Amino acid sequence: MLRWLALAALLLIAAAPVEAPKTTPSVAEIAAAAPASDWRAIDPENTVYLDLPKGRVIIELAPAFAPNHVANIKALARARYFDGGYVVRVQDNYVVQWSQPDVKRGLGAGKATLKAEFDRPIAPDLAFTAMPDADTYAAQTGFSDGFPAARDPAQGRAWLAHCYGMVGAGRDNDADSGGGAELYAVIGNAPRNLDRNVTLVGRVVQGIELMSAMPRGTGDLGFYEHPEERIAIKAITVAADLPPAQRVDLETLRTDSASFARLVEARRNRHDDWYKHASGHVDVCSVKVPVRVHGSK
Amino acid sequence: MLRWLALAALLLIAAAPVEAPKTTPSVAEIAAAAPASDWRAIDPENTVYLDLPKGRVIIELAPAFAPNHVANIKALARARYFDGGYVVRVQDNYVVQWSQPDVKRGLGAGKATLKAEFDRPIAPDLAFTAMPDADTYAAQTGFSDGFPAARDPAQGRAWLAHCYGMVGAGRDNDADSGGGAELYAVIGNAPRNLDRNVTLVGRVVQGIELMSAMPRGTGDLGFYEHPEERIAIKAITVAADLPPAQRVDLETLRTDSASFARLVEARRNRHDDWYKHASGHVDVCSVKVPVRVHGSK
Repeated sequence: MLRWLALAALLLIAAAPVEAPKTTPSVAEIAAAAPASDWRAIDPENTVYLDLPKGRVIIELAPAFAPNHVANIKALARARYFDGGYVVRVQDNYVVQWSQPDVKRGLGAGKATLKAEFDRPIAPDLAFTAMPDADTYAAQTGFSDGFPAARDPAQGRAWLAHCYGMVGAGRDNDADSGGGAELYAVIGNAPRNLDRNVTLVGRVVQGIELMSAMPRGTGDLGFYEHPEERIAIKAITVAADLPPAQRVDLETLRTDSASFARLVEARRNRHDDWYKHASGHVDVCSVKVPVRVHGSK
Repeated sequence: MLRWLALAALLLIAAAPVEAPKTTPSVAEIAAAAPASDWRAIDPENTVYLDLPKGRVIIELAPAFAPNHVANIKALARARYFDGGYVVRVQDNYVVQWSQPDVKRGLGAGKATLKAEFDRPIAPDLAFTAMPDADTYAAQTGFSDGFPAARDPAQGRAWLAHCYGMVGAGRDNDADSGGGAELYAVIGNAPRNLDRNVTLVGRVVQGIELMSAMPRGTGDLGFYEHPEERIAIKAITVAADLPPAQRVDLETLRTDSASFARLVEARRNRHDDWYKHASGHVDVCSVKVPVRVHGSK
């Protein structure tokens, strides 16, 4: 009996029509096909250039989540506070951190510390495009105008998520001891347990590999043990303060666009010649938002 | 009325006893306090040393999940197949990949390709300590004798998870085109969509920072564009083939131990002078299993 059932099953399989393999477009293909209206320019007033010996890191700031920190970082940059500072810490699978450890530069209109901006109220004018899958850490995750974010509707709170390339304000034990004079970028597996513990201020939109490939510090927490190991910061500049010809004219795929929804779906269910098993899910930190020079393909 | 309620609430708050702040032990404290029985020696027969110009990367192989690939990698190492090979690809936030691109060394008792070992049956003798929180990708996640893993009880299948530092066998489009002659290690946010698409063969237990800090390749998929960029592999050696005095005597915290359960709980709910918000959750790839030289504190 079992034998016949098995044979019948085999016959059914053999008789099934051969389906053409489904293919999913790649991120590059989706980005290239996206209409101009699915992109938004990255505002030079909310962009800072961090110039390192090996090149430029570009950070988009997030005033919707950390308005006071963003204003402070821009004030400090305009006072040239960061120039001549250093990357002082590179902890593997965690963060690169930079500050102005020696020279006490003037703060200009900036402040040394600020009240924490760990989260903020959910509000109608705060963009949020929800991810379709469950998250280990938060009730909801999604993207807010390009930034990975999370929400707790029961508490009415929203916050930025510690994904790869996110930039935050280092602090001491006091919640209000940060402010942006010391900053870090995530260079490892998303340390989501930091969410709501630090003020995230933005995201690296170009050049994160200049930081992630830096030599790891051998001191506690990845701090460089010797001053000569530190990596110099030539300058941190607000993009809007440069003449337009000297800016990098970047645009980012709108995370509330149909193209971005296609991209998320393509990441959830990859069908191509290489993938054999579509995971059917994707977490917020595994979706990279496309960024490109304006109008490039 | 509202005013009085508010005042009453304030009085209640003021009258509440001041709780002593809870503190959670650190991973280092938990490891140091763990009894010897909560550690297991890492078997030299399932360990390979990958020697690079800047130092040694130590990989623990996972024969419970990929027995044929593990046997093949050891056979290839014993044929000295890998020696004189190169790291050929470093893709930011993704993988470092190495192979023997030029010299056609003898395979010895090894094979060029093998049938895929993407997953395996759940079985009573396959260790699995479940994580307490939901996962975006799999029905269950946990640790199998030190290795991050996932399971689907409905399908009766278990597999290793693509967390930071995991090592897998590169392949072409054909599922059975890998085998271990080309290997990669994860150096970025856990690419869990690779789970069940590649045969994972082990985990880096020491020296991952030697790989994660390598210069990123500028070619497609992070391949080095010029042969001179490639990073030489001096040798890959099975630890058991060296005299005991030349081995690194490592041990790992048993993931089925009470100490490891404490560690997971400490990662889920951090209470110390710095943390202001305990996330209450942790995902499998955010738990690093302690590894140390035998008996060290």
